[in-house]
Amino acid sequence: MAERFGEHSLKAVGVRIDAEHPEGFIFDPHQPQLRVTDLGSVRGDGIFETMLVLDGKLRKLQPHLDRLARSAEITEIGIPPEESWRAAIDRGLEEFKTRGGGGDNISVRLTATRGVDGEPASEDPRWAGTYWVLLTPVPEKVMANRLKPISVTLLDRGYDSKASERAPWLLLSAKTLSYAVNMAAYRWAAQHGFDDVIFYTSDGQVLEAPTSTVLLLTKTADGTPKLTTPTLKTGILPGTSQGSIFAAAERAGWELGYGPITPEDLKAADHLWLASSLRLVSPIERIDDTEFATDEDYTAQLLDFLKEDLASSYPQEG
Amino acid sequence: MAERFGEHSLKAVGVRIDAEHPEGFIFDPHQPQLRVTDLGSVRGDGIFETMLVLDGKLRKLQPHLDRLARSAEITEIGIPPEESWRAAIDRGLEEFKTRGGGGDNISVRLTATRGVDGEPASEDPRWAGTYWVLLTPVPEKVMANRLKPISVTLLDRGYDSKASERAPWLLLSAKTLSYAVNMAAYRWAAQHGFDDVIFYTSDGQVLEAPTSTVLLLTKTADGTPKLTTPTLKTGILPGTSQGSIFAAAERAGWELGYGPITPEDLKAADHLWLASSLRLVSPIERIDDTEFATDEDYTAQLLDFLKEDLASSYPQEG
Repeated sequence: MAERFGEHSLKAVGVRIDAEHPEGFIFDPHQPQLRVTDLGSVRGDGIFETMLVLDGKLRKLQPHLDRLARSAEITEIGIPPEESWRAAIDRGLEEFKTRGGGGDNISVRLTATRGVDGEPASEDPRWAGTYWVLLTPVPEKVMANRLKPISVTLLDRGYDSKASERAPWLLLSAKTLSYAVNMAAYRWAAQHGFDDVIFYTSDGQVLEAPTSTVLLLTKTADGTPKLTTPTLKTGILPGTSQGSIFAAAERAGWELGYGPITPEDLKAADHLWLASSLRLVSPIERIDDTEFATDEDYTAQLLDFLKEDLASSYPQEG
Repeated sequence: MAERFGEHSLKAVGVRIDAEHPEGFIFDPHQPQLRVTDLGSVRGDGIFETMLVLDGKLRKLQPHLDRLARSAEITEIGIPPEESWRAAIDRGLEEFKTRGGGGDNISVRLTATRGVDGEPASEDPRWAGTYWVLLTPVPEKVMANRLKPISVTLLDRGYDSKASERAPWLLLSAKTLSYAVNMAAYRWAAQHGFDDVIFYTSDGQVLEAPTSTVLLLTKTADGTPKLTTPTLKTGILPGTSQGSIFAAAERAGWELGYGPITPEDLKAADHLWLASSLRLVSPIERIDDTEFATDEDYTAQLLDFLKEDLASSYPQEG
């Protein structure tokens, strides 16, 4: 199989899923796959998930499949059944290893688009769109910066904290392909000397980072660590890494909390992190002009929590 | 050339632009063109314009090229020079006619994406992304509904009217590919028995429709018609059809106005329309529970204004 891929593509594998290939078929991501009339390509009208193979094990597959299904429901995009995604991922991982891509630190991205405008791929809505899995090595930059302290700027997301509840057409809690604002926020941050962004609402509630979840650590009166994350009521994405960390933290006797969180709450926290599937956990050492102490032990503890990954379901807000 | 296209694709023509082909080369839009690593396809990270060939003439090319350049500046996506887009469009129109697509009611869509993640197509930023022109017949549904009265629902856009000024990373006045919310609003409208949507801000200012501009007609004390459109300060897109209509209306002695406009102002207007390149002008006969009189003469007048299309520049707000 490897020889039909160009040398440059040695470490990227695509698996396309369609009604005729419910278990997926391999493609070369360096070759064109998508039509210019695909609604994913021309209107950002699709959904995705990104997960990680770490220490040789695919992490948090079920939570990511659950969140993909939730995004599909919100956006009314039909998607293949779970067993199809699972089979395609297995096929991709096998191919990735066969082709010398190694077995660790692989990014596994699932994408589903609404398909080609006016030409559904199937009459069955579960197969009407365009679906693929993309396996690539975790980018070198992400690898190099893992666990390193980062600086963050707070940016206004424009919405207020009630927008998600009153305006479901804003799709706030779906993970769609319409990520131009997230990318623009990253450019803004880089141009102003920051590594990352935390969004807040126009009425002053902390939301999320463009591709990560915010975690706060405070200590209770008796010294028990308490992890807090912003409330989902604002329409942020439920973080799968946050969920995994919370599950293990609960088993370890830590306290858990779910916002609302203000920028002042951030500044009052003992320690802060951003968590996401590829970056794992990044301790925050600065938010705008405010410095924060980082703590290697707690960072290592959160990483251990994340790696426990025992949970098939996570503690839920509320 | 036609024979290498499938029969089904008889009426769609693509023209790809790159550094080696600054005047473009023809492709079959039914064949895959885009990689799954193209940032346009996986993050809605691109920009576009759609224009129309009407009565055999490509309409408002310069205003659309100007707006594309403005979107490119806001999003920091490099795009080829104007002469390249012009040459590619000419090539596409010629091919479209050669292949029996006819010479009228052709949709001409320009798209530019940020290109493939980490692999710019050129060192020169003007050619680093992915660029194409897509020519298709105007959809039958659009043709069938042209000039017909429509019902509209007002939907909250989540943002307040100052968000665009204070938060440029929201890209509010760029026409990006991240259109999932616009599409969701259309689905919401259809499911609730409406033909279209007008967005308003969380603080009660009228914005725009997902793909059109709002026009209000009122009469001054001496009977002169006055056309008003929402202010650009809210971050809405400057409408090219609105600009063209306003230019001709000004020549005809009409008065012009630029918001702010409230939902109450809409309800106090004598007549209302949505204007866009493909639909032209659609009179509004209902907004939620409020009925409006439509006036065929004024609708015909606006259409005439739009077809005059003499202006190389349009009256500007402020």
